Amino acid sequence: MASFLFSSLELSEMKSVTEYLKFHTTTHRAYVHLTPQIEEIVRRSGVQEGMALVSAMHITAGVYINDNESGLIEDIDQWLEHLAPFRKNYKHHETGEDNGDSHLKALLIHHEVIVPITAGSWIWARGSESSMRNLTASGTSA
Amino acid sequence: MASFLFSSLELSEMKSVTEYLKFHTTTHRAYVHLTPQIEEIVRRSGVQEGMALVSAMHITAGVYINDNESGLIEDIDQWLEHLAPFRKNYKHHETGEDNGDSHLKALLIHHEVIVPITAGSWIWARGSESSMRNLTASGTSA
Amino acid sequence: MASFLFSSLELSEMKSVTEYLKFHTTTHRAYVHLTPQIEEIVRRSGVQEGMALVSAMHITAGVYINDNESGLIEDIDQWLEHLAPFRKNYKHHETGEDNGDSHLKALLIHHEVIVPITAGSWIWARGSESSMRNLTASGTSA
Repeated sequence: MASFLFSSLELSEMKSVTEYLKFHTTTHRAYVHLTPQIEEIVRRSGVQEGMALVSAMHITAGVYINDNESGLIEDIDQWLEHLAPFRKNYKHHETGEDNGDSHLKALLIHHEVIVPITAGSWIWARGSESSMRNLTASGTSA
Repeated sequence: MASFLFSSLELSEMKSVTEYLKFHTTTHRAYVHLTPQIEEIVRRSGVQEGMALVSAMHITAGVYINDNESGLIEDIDQWLEHLAPFRKNYKHHETGEDNGDSHLKALLIHHEVIVPITAGSWIWARGSESSMRNLTASGTSA
Repeated sequence: MASFLFSSLELSEMKSVTEYLKFHTTTHRAYVHLTPQIEEIVRRSGVQEGMALVSAMHITAGVYINDNESGLIEDIDQWLEHLAPFRKNYKHHETGEDNGDSHLKALLIHHEVIVPITAGSWIWARGSESSMRNLTASGTSA
């Protein structure tokens, strides 16, 4: 069984909230669990019906929705390294940079997600799904 | 020749429609053609200018836009298995689950798509493109 | 250090601008730098707070955000060919087409991006980030 959401939006009563979140990471690659902070911002914003856009502000970072389970995050990290491996000889490195793999990993993970807000909360954060659907930011330290 | 759409939105006259679609699938992986149902919901919603967000409600499911051609869907399925293969030894399996590959496949396919609505219909559903651009949900049975 | 944007939107004072961009490309695969044209459209639209959706209009094309650096674009091109190689024997080719790989490459790159507009400009186009975050369209000639 699979269920899918369809949401089509024409919105009024303008309410637009933008907040920047900053994270200091200490490892070369890091996975940050964003869900609690986003839920708090949605609550504070008062938005009842709309969309939340969560977008990375660096091009070697991305945002994805998946299970916040430490083993899976290790699997994802190894998988990204397998599909977009660190190598010395990317053409991009002729600029003096050494993070060609990070650019490719970010392309795989993707830059942003959009999540619907209904009745003032993320619809994924309700009921039995709540433990499963989580927002994670992935990125290399800048 | 490639053409791209740019749509920037500040919307009023609030009209927001949310519907949930559920599918009972019988195979481990399944590809569901969503376009007709989404077109019907857009028509029913009365939205003239806006965006349609189609988002998976399970983290081992995704939504993508591509050709609704059975051979291509087989190609996509084999390709997903090649890039994110079923394996016994994902770390995620230490939790008792056995679907590590489904989580990775869903990351590749991605969680949601946003499509512009203009003049009351999906702009991709017009003219000579109409047979080519289709919305497909991909997911593992929960 | 990684920073992330959160933007939740309920918009009014309807202003919706849709423009189509067309590109004539001469090579089998091409990468088109879209940022200047999108910035110009955002400026012309007068939208102050909202979202810009940039969506490919062909299913063998995609849109992504990354560094507009020629070496990196070569890396991306080789990487796409590695992960979704040209092959004669895709099932899709039984229809008479020969672009199975292009469909898979487009799935990797993805179909569309959404970028927040604040204070009348793309927020990624400000300050020290401006040289880094660029929008690129990728696609095969139709």
